[in-house]
Amino acid sequence: MSTYSTVETQTVRADNGVDYAYRSLGSGAGAPPLVLLQHFRGNLDNWDPALIDALAHGRRVITFDNTGVGATSGRTPNTVAAMAGDAIEFIDALGLDKVDLLGFSLGSFVAQEIALHRPDLVNRIVLASAAPRGAAGIHGWRRDVIEGVGGREPSPEGYLHAFVPATPEGLAAGQALLGRIYGERTEGHDDPTTWQTRQAQYDAVIEWGIPNHALLERLQGIAQPVFVANGDSDPMIPPRYSYLLAGLLPDVQIKIYPDAAHGFLFQHHKEFAADVNKFLGK
Amino acid sequence: MSTYSTVETQTVRADNGVDYAYRSLGSGAGAPPLVLLQHFRGNLDNWDPALIDALAHGRRVITFDNTGVGATSGRTPNTVAAMAGDAIEFIDALGLDKVDLLGFSLGSFVAQEIALHRPDLVNRIVLASAAPRGAAGIHGWRRDVIEGVGGREPSPEGYLHAFVPATPEGLAAGQALLGRIYGERTEGHDDPTTWQTRQAQYDAVIEWGIPNHALLERLQGIAQPVFVANGDSDPMIPPRYSYLLAGLLPDVQIKIYPDAAHGFLFQHHKEFAADVNKFLGK
Repeated sequence: MSTYSTVETQTVRADNGVDYAYRSLGSGAGAPPLVLLQHFRGNLDNWDPALIDALAHGRRVITFDNTGVGATSGRTPNTVAAMAGDAIEFIDALGLDKVDLLGFSLGSFVAQEIALHRPDLVNRIVLASAAPRGAAGIHGWRRDVIEGVGGREPSPEGYLHAFVPATPEGLAAGQALLGRIYGERTEGHDDPTTWQTRQAQYDAVIEWGIPNHALLERLQGIAQPVFVANGDSDPMIPPRYSYLLAGLLPDVQIKIYPDAAHGFLFQHHKEFAADVNKFLGK
Repeated sequence: MSTYSTVETQTVRADNGVDYAYRSLGSGAGAPPLVLLQHFRGNLDNWDPALIDALAHGRRVITFDNTGVGATSGRTPNTVAAMAGDAIEFIDALGLDKVDLLGFSLGSFVAQEIALHRPDLVNRIVLASAAPRGAAGIHGWRRDVIEGVGGREPSPEGYLHAFVPATPEGLAAGQALLGRIYGERTEGHDDPTTWQTRQAQYDAVIEWGIPNHALLERLQGIAQPVFVANGDSDPMIPPRYSYLLAGLLPDVQIKIYPDAAHGFLFQHHKEFAADVNKFLGK
């Protein structure tokens, strides 16, 4: 059986003319496929293979590079709404009529837009390290965080600064995570993300964070069951935004993982996968 | 030393001409007095004496009947803002320039209004079983809940339906609570609350719950540190409203108590008093 570190990358041409790179792992009769939406500057290789393998028991899990990201063709758009439109094009190209979504960070923004603009396509939603559009106080991320992950040549240290807490347990988990992400796959790597992708995605993040209290009301339009999850010491998207989602989404569960930061879902991959599998049903 | 079951009821006439009935327990040099704001139809006798005794170590704790409630003179007003104005009159009458507030249920609404309208008076705020004004979905409470606590002749069963969960532990805790509230004080009881108070307070609760997303933004005007606490299965004010408070208040901590309902602060009085004492500092 394949694992996420050995499964090959495939390509599908969508109706918008974009060739999407994606990976598909697992299968499950009756369960909607779970489509994953990636974080700022991440490509197919930036998903923790331990998490994907744990999610792909009894269901199909699909990761993909959105337009302009990694090995996917085209130019990365600079709004979350355009990214959501491109993700819908990809899902349509696979011939899927109903999917579950798991959006992580920027991907959680895209998941919300997909649910608002194509509700019939979406069964259940997992929002990891998420924030709603227009929430006060998140415009552009903290300086130390964007300096850590936003430079021309991002470093593992900057990544870990946002992804794991600076505790002995957190730093050890971070080293193990780097080993899984950069060490397990030995061939068929994805293309690196470009500076154009970085600039366009950060523009989208900035626009998402322009304070606009009225836009928070849009969450009432997401009728699907949602599982909101966050690390308790996430410096990039603090848990207050998960609480805000839990206060405004009509049908929602929330869990805050202790001693964890932006990458809580990788650090606590066993616990998080079990929680997601329970939420999605299997 | 006095306890809440033996401390006598005092009266103070405020500048608005109202004679306020109140009880004061404990003292603490340097610590602001903690003023408690009571729930729907509650009077001085409806505070759990075990909780008040635990809070009154190292600080002064003050309970009072607001205008028209119990032994206090006047007519109960029918808006939360007017109740907050009356509470400020009482605090002014005691000569207090800075207080901590603990508002429970309807009292949590009053606490928010006090903080918004007289911010200099307020040091720290505890909101128990709370909701912000205008939050969607809370307009008027669930039918079974208001039927339980809102009748002409309210019963212990209706009270317990809202205050403790229908689990063996919850029901046992409820019986113990009734024993403390109705059994411990042997003399000097408060006057019962009237139907006029019931009608005016429910009018105020209804008005507070009229859905108005824009009003949620008012929470950004409460700069004080706030501790938001709730029972996980509160049928009267579900925890989603605590999450909403935690997502919008600028400086906030949140705790959801397991296997607990509207009266979590009485059911878990030891744990809650310890959490409040830690939050307020002593």
